Amino acid sequence: MTNQPSPHFASTAIIGVGLIGASLALALRDRKLTDKIIGIDQDKGVLERAAALNIIDDTASSLEQGVSGADLILIAAPVGAIGEIVAGLRDHARDGAIIIDAGSVKGAVATAAATLPERLFFVPSHPVSGTEQSGPEAGFASLFEERWCILTPLNRTDDAYRGAVDTVAALWRAVGAQVDIMDAEHHDLALAVTSHLPHLIAFTLIGAADDLESVTEAEIIKYSAGGFRDFTRIAASDPVMWRDVFLHNREAVIEALGRFTEELIALQRAIRWGDGKALHAAFERGQVLRQAIVEAGQETASPNFGRDQKGDEGSEQN
Amino acid sequence: MTNQPSPHFASTAIIGVGLIGASLALALRDRKLTDKIIGIDQDKGVLERAAALNIIDDTASSLEQGVSGADLILIAAPVGAIGEIVAGLRDHARDGAIIIDAGSVKGAVATAAATLPERLFFVPSHPVSGTEQSGPEAGFASLFEERWCILTPLNRTDDAYRGAVDTVAALWRAVGAQVDIMDAEHHDLALAVTSHLPHLIAFTLIGAADDLESVTEAEIIKYSAGGFRDFTRIAASDPVMWRDVFLHNREAVIEALGRFTEELIALQRAIRWGDGKALHAAFERGQVLRQAIVEAGQETASPNFGRDQKGDEGSEQN
Repeated sequence: MTNQPSPHFASTAIIGVGLIGASLALALRDRKLTDKIIGIDQDKGVLERAAALNIIDDTASSLEQGVSGADLILIAAPVGAIGEIVAGLRDHARDGAIIIDAGSVKGAVATAAATLPERLFFVPSHPVSGTEQSGPEAGFASLFEERWCILTPLNRTDDAYRGAVDTVAALWRAVGAQVDIMDAEHHDLALAVTSHLPHLIAFTLIGAADDLESVTEAEIIKYSAGGFRDFTRIAASDPVMWRDVFLHNREAVIEALGRFTEELIALQRAIRWGDGKALHAAFERGQVLRQAIVEAGQETASPNFGRDQKGDEGSEQN
Repeated sequence: MTNQPSPHFASTAIIGVGLIGASLALALRDRKLTDKIIGIDQDKGVLERAAALNIIDDTASSLEQGVSGADLILIAAPVGAIGEIVAGLRDHARDGAIIIDAGSVKGAVATAAATLPERLFFVPSHPVSGTEQSGPEAGFASLFEERWCILTPLNRTDDAYRGAVDTVAALWRAVGAQVDIMDAEHHDLALAVTSHLPHLIAFTLIGAADDLESVTEAEIIKYSAGGFRDFTRIAASDPVMWRDVFLHNREAVIEALGRFTEELIALQRAIRWGDGKALHAAFERGQVLRQAIVEAGQETASPNFGRDQKGDEGSEQN
């Protein structure tokens, strides 16, 4: 794979103009990587808002019509919709069109993409970035900067497809991301650990707190600065997107969950037995790993997110 | 309890000049609530750094000497040290001294405090605030602002003690906190849910990720923006403090953990069975609860902590 110059697309179709779709639209526009962006979304209200925000140039009345003239097609819809969308592209996308997605699960995307004819070039992509907010209003052009984007190319060996992979890698780099390439199976395992399991745990904690008899919801809210608060950010993510992630990455998530449960039982036993040494040893690992994440630029060292910074009161946006 | 004016203390002793001790010292100084602050810490290096940062006015060579002239004594050490510290106060604190602590567990503090003579006024306190950072350098005067401080008064009915509770409540209000009063048992149950369990879960996730065979640590760091990152903030907290929390709030933590495990098993089953409806219903609760926490001022609505804000690049401190 060579480091290509930034690619250019005369016309781009974006299927699903939510946080990710809108952010890539804004990033493409900012970097002048495309001349025209057509928005496609089942929700007409989303298209109207995206057009009003000048995120898209035009809207399409159907997926088939919207993609027919596009050189680049971005699928930014929940993973559960991938089969239906790919079916719509099969006969209507133009020869040579490059198709990317942004799904958090890649095995299911590869299966759907493999049904497309060779004249179309689907390069499954996963930009590992996002916020807990949804909808076109939540999009911003710098979302992908300094984040990793993982490509899981299909099992195709033709030169044209390899060229498409290079083009897609150059596209993600052009919007600020770093690019990794791996197979879909390994992606789904790695992301089960770094993304899917953390979300599941956060949703679980919210659920466990939700119907306690002994502690009121008012108390949970008031004292959330004790740590609970940190979990609510990712637990506020789009429920449809996450439902589809878990339905489509079942095995890897259950495997990661098995490791988590083992560790949880070991710590529970240490608490029950009053084994302070074991607890201290387990807790020390957090500082080391966080330091590594901060150094890798995936987090800032600023303490205590969620409140104004020391000496910096009032500068955070609300 | 009446809303008293801000109290004033001629001399304050702070036992443990870490994040909390230093922050209260700075807050007292800022609001002119005390004339003099004496720092006491087992670690002489901490005292030197605190003095150099002008957080304390003087240091003491022993706990006994340091507290002997103090009107206000703050214990800001790990909960495991409370028995030893209280023993040191018994004969050396002056008549009428007000003693507060800042521990995350209150039952164990109440047990130790109950051994003090009536001439001393210990009002157990828990400011529900903090950051993942440790040491006097991490302290800042606004740490307690807009956060809740929970008081769990001892089982004393004398007027002098009731007056001390009022004074302590006024003290915490004077440094910006809102004050709640409850019994130690309920505190330990509520905080097991809002603080101790979230920390335990975060430590568990770090541990589960730490020795996987299939996913490298480099991958975990690179792709941590997928959600894992959010857990590392609280998992980077002081391991000694947290060891002591779990050793001293065992029952309530294990009870909260039981609820968590039930919920986790229910979600695991929904994933295994492909029950999208159950997953969606569970995931929807996160947005509702987060909204309530933001509205209660315990969190800002800014998306995606850990990176610069949209339209606000570069303003976050590093």
